[in-house]
Amino acid sequence: MAPSGMRMRARALGIAIGTYPPGPNNAITDVGGVLVGHATVMRGDPGSRSTEPVVRTGVTAVLPRADVWAGGVLAATHTLNGDGEMTGTRWIRDLETLTHPVLLTGTRSVGAVYDAALSYIYERRPDRRWGMLPVVAETWDGLLSDQRVQSIEPSHVYEAIEGATDGPVVEGNVGSGTGMVCYDFKGGIGTASRQLPERGGRYTVGVLVQANFGSRRQFVIDGVPAGQTLTDLMPKIAPTMSSDESHEGSVIVVAATDAPLSSRQLERLARRGALGLARTGSISANTSGDIIIAFSTANVVPMKGARPTLALAQLPTDSVDPLFQAVIEATEEAVCGPGGRHDGGSERQRRVWLTL
Amino acid sequence: MAPSGMRMRARALGIAIGTYPPGPNNAITDVGGVLVGHATVMRGDPGSRSTEPVVRTGVTAVLPRADVWAGGVLAATHTLNGDGEMTGTRWIRDLETLTHPVLLTGTRSVGAVYDAALSYIYERRPDRRWGMLPVVAETWDGLLSDQRVQSIEPSHVYEAIEGATDGPVVEGNVGSGTGMVCYDFKGGIGTASRQLPERGGRYTVGVLVQANFGSRRQFVIDGVPAGQTLTDLMPKIAPTMSSDESHEGSVIVVAATDAPLSSRQLERLARRGALGLARTGSISANTSGDIIIAFSTANVVPMKGARPTLALAQLPTDSVDPLFQAVIEATEEAVCGPGGRHDGGSERQRRVWLTL
Amino acid sequence: MAPSGMRMRARALGIAIGTYPPGPNNAITDVGGVLVGHATVMRGDPGSRSTEPVVRTGVTAVLPRADVWAGGVLAATHTLNGDGEMTGTRWIRDLETLTHPVLLTGTRSVGAVYDAALSYIYERRPDRRWGMLPVVAETWDGLLSDQRVQSIEPSHVYEAIEGATDGPVVEGNVGSGTGMVCYDFKGGIGTASRQLPERGGRYTVGVLVQANFGSRRQFVIDGVPAGQTLTDLMPKIAPTMSSDESHEGSVIVVAATDAPLSSRQLERLARRGALGLARTGSISANTSGDIIIAFSTANVVPMKGARPTLALAQLPTDSVDPLFQAVIEATEEAVCGPGGRHDGGSERQRRVWLTL
Amino acid sequence: MAPSGMRMRARALGIAIGTYPPGPNNAITDVGGVLVGHATVMRGDPGSRSTEPVVRTGVTAVLPRADVWAGGVLAATHTLNGDGEMTGTRWIRDLETLTHPVLLTGTRSVGAVYDAALSYIYERRPDRRWGMLPVVAETWDGLLSDQRVQSIEPSHVYEAIEGATDGPVVEGNVGSGTGMVCYDFKGGIGTASRQLPERGGRYTVGVLVQANFGSRRQFVIDGVPAGQTLTDLMPKIAPTMSSDESHEGSVIVVAATDAPLSSRQLERLARRGALGLARTGSISANTSGDIIIAFSTANVVPMKGARPTLALAQLPTDSVDPLFQAVIEATEEAVCGPGGRHDGGSERQRRVWLTL
Repeated sequence: MAPSGMRMRARALGIAIGTYPPGPNNAITDVGGVLVGHATVMRGDPGSRSTEPVVRTGVTAVLPRADVWAGGVLAATHTLNGDGEMTGTRWIRDLETLTHPVLLTGTRSVGAVYDAALSYIYERRPDRRWGMLPVVAETWDGLLSDQRVQSIEPSHVYEAIEGATDGPVVEGNVGSGTGMVCYDFKGGIGTASRQLPERGGRYTVGVLVQANFGSRRQFVIDGVPAGQTLTDLMPKIAPTMSSDESHEGSVIVVAATDAPLSSRQLERLARRGALGLARTGSISANTSGDIIIAFSTANVVPMKGARPTLALAQLPTDSVDPLFQAVIEATEEAVCGPGGRHDGGSERQRRVWLTL
Repeated sequence: MAPSGMRMRARALGIAIGTYPPGPNNAITDVGGVLVGHATVMRGDPGSRSTEPVVRTGVTAVLPRADVWAGGVLAATHTLNGDGEMTGTRWIRDLETLTHPVLLTGTRSVGAVYDAALSYIYERRPDRRWGMLPVVAETWDGLLSDQRVQSIEPSHVYEAIEGATDGPVVEGNVGSGTGMVCYDFKGGIGTASRQLPERGGRYTVGVLVQANFGSRRQFVIDGVPAGQTLTDLMPKIAPTMSSDESHEGSVIVVAATDAPLSSRQLERLARRGALGLARTGSISANTSGDIIIAFSTANVVPMKGARPTLALAQLPTDSVDPLFQAVIEATEEAVCGPGGRHDGGSERQRRVWLTL
Repeated sequence: MAPSGMRMRARALGIAIGTYPPGPNNAITDVGGVLVGHATVMRGDPGSRSTEPVVRTGVTAVLPRADVWAGGVLAATHTLNGDGEMTGTRWIRDLETLTHPVLLTGTRSVGAVYDAALSYIYERRPDRRWGMLPVVAETWDGLLSDQRVQSIEPSHVYEAIEGATDGPVVEGNVGSGTGMVCYDFKGGIGTASRQLPERGGRYTVGVLVQANFGSRRQFVIDGVPAGQTLTDLMPKIAPTMSSDESHEGSVIVVAATDAPLSSRQLERLARRGALGLARTGSISANTSGDIIIAFSTANVVPMKGARPTLALAQLPTDSVDPLFQAVIEATEEAVCGPGGRHDGGSERQRRVWLTL
Repeated sequence: MAPSGMRMRARALGIAIGTYPPGPNNAITDVGGVLVGHATVMRGDPGSRSTEPVVRTGVTAVLPRADVWAGGVLAATHTLNGDGEMTGTRWIRDLETLTHPVLLTGTRSVGAVYDAALSYIYERRPDRRWGMLPVVAETWDGLLSDQRVQSIEPSHVYEAIEGATDGPVVEGNVGSGTGMVCYDFKGGIGTASRQLPERGGRYTVGVLVQANFGSRRQFVIDGVPAGQTLTDLMPKIAPTMSSDESHEGSVIVVAATDAPLSSRQLERLARRGALGLARTGSISANTSGDIIIAFSTANVVPMKGARPTLALAQLPTDSVDPLFQAVIEATEEAVCGPGGRHDGGSERQRRVWLTL
């Protein structure tokens, strides 16, 4: 039985993307130590005549390790297109480490989540005195959630962090994915993983996406241009939205691996996330913020006082190709999860925009 | 008479950095249309035995043009070292424009300022429906201001934006510079400008810095290693700070010009800001977030609906050298303003850390 | 009838990639003013017992305009993976212009082509006194061509430049493509173009690739994983090659448009070339040098003496999506041209490796 | 007694730049294992009425280790301004290693040196079958050396490589520095080093520059704007040069250390090279190609067959500041060596341009 909140996944429909097998949960949490937590915020009824704001938003936290505040993991980012935000990435570039949870949310709530991430450290990790640059990324949930109000409270951020678990990951309309739309289907959180064979080092790659991009006609599932035939399930615009707002959206990709990669190798892995997006039909449109972060759990990097040198395990450069393949496959499948899941054509699905 | 809050500036002490003359106010506002506003937050007395938090922080807003929300200016950024944050720069990279005020603050308040910047748009500019990615930059004022509490209210952000003016710019312990320390002097906001001669196109370059970096021994004024002889005015650490916290700090540089530069030319200008920092003695230390943003007021770029093409004025590439020289000189002088101003040696100055 | 040297193209086989129509020649030369020339070098017989080196190499020149030495075009590059070379790209980054032909060749001949490109200027364009940084790119033709000898003469470079024409482009085993292998088919030069409709501004995007990458099993044609079923046409390794050499190869993509794009917009276009490669199955392997250059013919940029400012046409940022779509489609089709063309299964094709 | 060819160095004139002491030779070769070799080419007499071309050029090789072809060192590059060339840097970025000598030469000879570097491998290191992307960098010696002819033979490249030694480094008019001009003094090769104290880990940083940039008025020696007073030793333009050619030139910086740095840390070190250039007065002019490469000799990285993982030593990030300081100081001093050495005012120096 699927965990509470799980719906049918692409693989359960017989769509087996790529060549490597998924991990036990086909989720980013198949990479040992990685935790995911959600806080979902829903208020108001888009079908009512109330003037109450309709809110469909949330926070999702990806922790590379439970005690990320005490020691970081090597990480890197890549920006395929820049109409989006992920904070804290200059540190990641130059100090090579991720020392915060990756916090995903809606565009309107970046500030609130950022502030809460710092409050959390001062309250719960007061011994941490450095690196006060949280990692907060966003896509725009304005099609489904009223942007005039900011609806995330610090407690939502704490809930996503402290409720983060390993095991199966709830996908779709949950956490930061609550208000997202992808290829004109209901989008949101998706995840997938791949396990490398013996000759690939038995490493695992896991991906979690916040998918909020794409026009229907562009959508491709495992090579099939499904978006060109599935034309009848187009979203009804939420009532607070004006009709002239286009939606080309954005996507955040979080890629994790237990392979011992350097920060540069991780940046190369992040670049391949873009290739996975391409396989789903993405053109990375002008108004898209397509940002990819990759990290490796293999080395824990202390930020202070390690002397005189660290000894870091690193995969030889001629061993990285299977990881490249894996991250492309997992990214493609993670997008098809929430984006492709709702094409069953039920009456309920047709009304997804009003009944969410 | 100097404007209220102005103190003696480097140039008034006979220190004339570089070769080009400054503009009328020797300030970033010498670039026509650029506005600067401050909101200063001071609470608590570091000399008292009260347990009330000691707060020395604020917000400074640099508006490239009064109606920046309606149409942007070409812009670019450069990161010399990455232990710092400036949000909104992926948009600047890919869409080439700055369509927000540049908001400066302390590390602890990035989230609050970010959130207020969005609230401001929804409240005051409700017709703006795109580009919800504010530009907020920070340096760490934790030596003088208690970081356990976040002290910036939305009203401070509104005050900095709506109070922004042209003309002389208040420097030093003001706005976002209130809690900053530079070369172990009291740091903060500094500004300077340069006017190019006829053969340089009579363009103006203005720089504003939030200076919060450097060890005393590194400090150089106009080529003189003054920091190696001025050893007696070292800061007393604020009482809430533990003694083991090093301070290598950060700097934000905002460079403006009325020369018609492309976004790439502006990025090259931003890179030269790093050369200006070097001339003051900066090594751009590991824990420094040294981020430079440059913009040109010469072209106003509409974000929507311009058809079929824009006609943008652009300086030929073989005309940029005077601008490079100017931004280096202005950056150097802007840092020496607040950093060098307090070396008079008065008893009051020696106690700057307690009496601020 | 196909032009001399042309073979059957993907589109002639009924494979119509993407949604926009191709230009008259379905070639990069559909962008007005762009010229392509080839010099092909073949020596030795891989089937003979002679000790004479077997050489299959050449030079291909893409001229953005006939008099590129007198005035450049705006340009930009993107590197998807770095095991490759394209010289002259720092100038392109900072001076924003391409002021040389793009010269493609084999890895072994980069130096020779570079040198000849400069000789050409001193001999034929002696008035040009600046920008002596030719653009030379390579992929490795060592599977089919002996690398111990360098076989390109200056005359080959001159031939490719001076023989460059508009109109149909010879593809496949020609010019710099002579020794290339792609997805374990015979690779080489491929080209395609797209024409935007009225609402896309009627602009043209053309792409030329030097395709030398990929493992057979990865190959996808228009969404169909053809490489997984076409397993019987694997290359026979040339006799001078040792059996332990893997081939993951590289690709150079040259993208042209007549849309007036800024250098940053062109860099964004170049990034989309990677998405086109992804659609053919590329994982951009570790040993791949995947480099993309994009230029616009719309503005001619003088390098010297333009005063006081240039007026450059530029497409508004919210008009770029059709161009993104077009470059992805054209890149995908250009790769499938030479890579997919030889899968007819004739006995002659099976022996392509010995009879080339 | 100075080695043959050595002239008086800045430090011998009492100019002691920075705070850390130099190594035994105050040269890049103070980093253990680093070798430097020169091949100098001089032909023709600028004072004669002969039509023979006047040639002042050469090749300088910096080997990070004697057997660099068998295993690389971690490396990175930074480009301060892009009107210049250093080949092979995409590999360095993505594969993180330098696996070739760094070969410096004049702009006109990049192709010849590149080709010879490959020939050298096929002839002398035939077992090397990968990474055929030599590292060749240039600055423009056209003020002193006729550019219409290419004067470097393969033998010069072999000579520079095979003659490379440790110990003192000949500076100035030697190797690739033969035709260079810096701050309107005779420029060329310069070198310097710094040794860190116990608390900096006793590491060494060495720098070698090919200095060919700057206008006299910009030149600063150890903070003193010497260029503004030393106005009488301006170069006489070589007779083959037209009078309208400006010279703003370029600089290549090669930085070496034995500290165990990651490729990212090395990139950060390379960025600091720019700060060292700034201290000598550089504005990194529009026509300058200012390119910096940094490598660490601490880890030898095999390119093939290492399994399953490498164990790389790496300095903790909070230990890098002394290295940043050292590379700034060494870069500054290396430039002042050849650039500042000739200001003694002897009659011979005044005629340097004719009697070279």
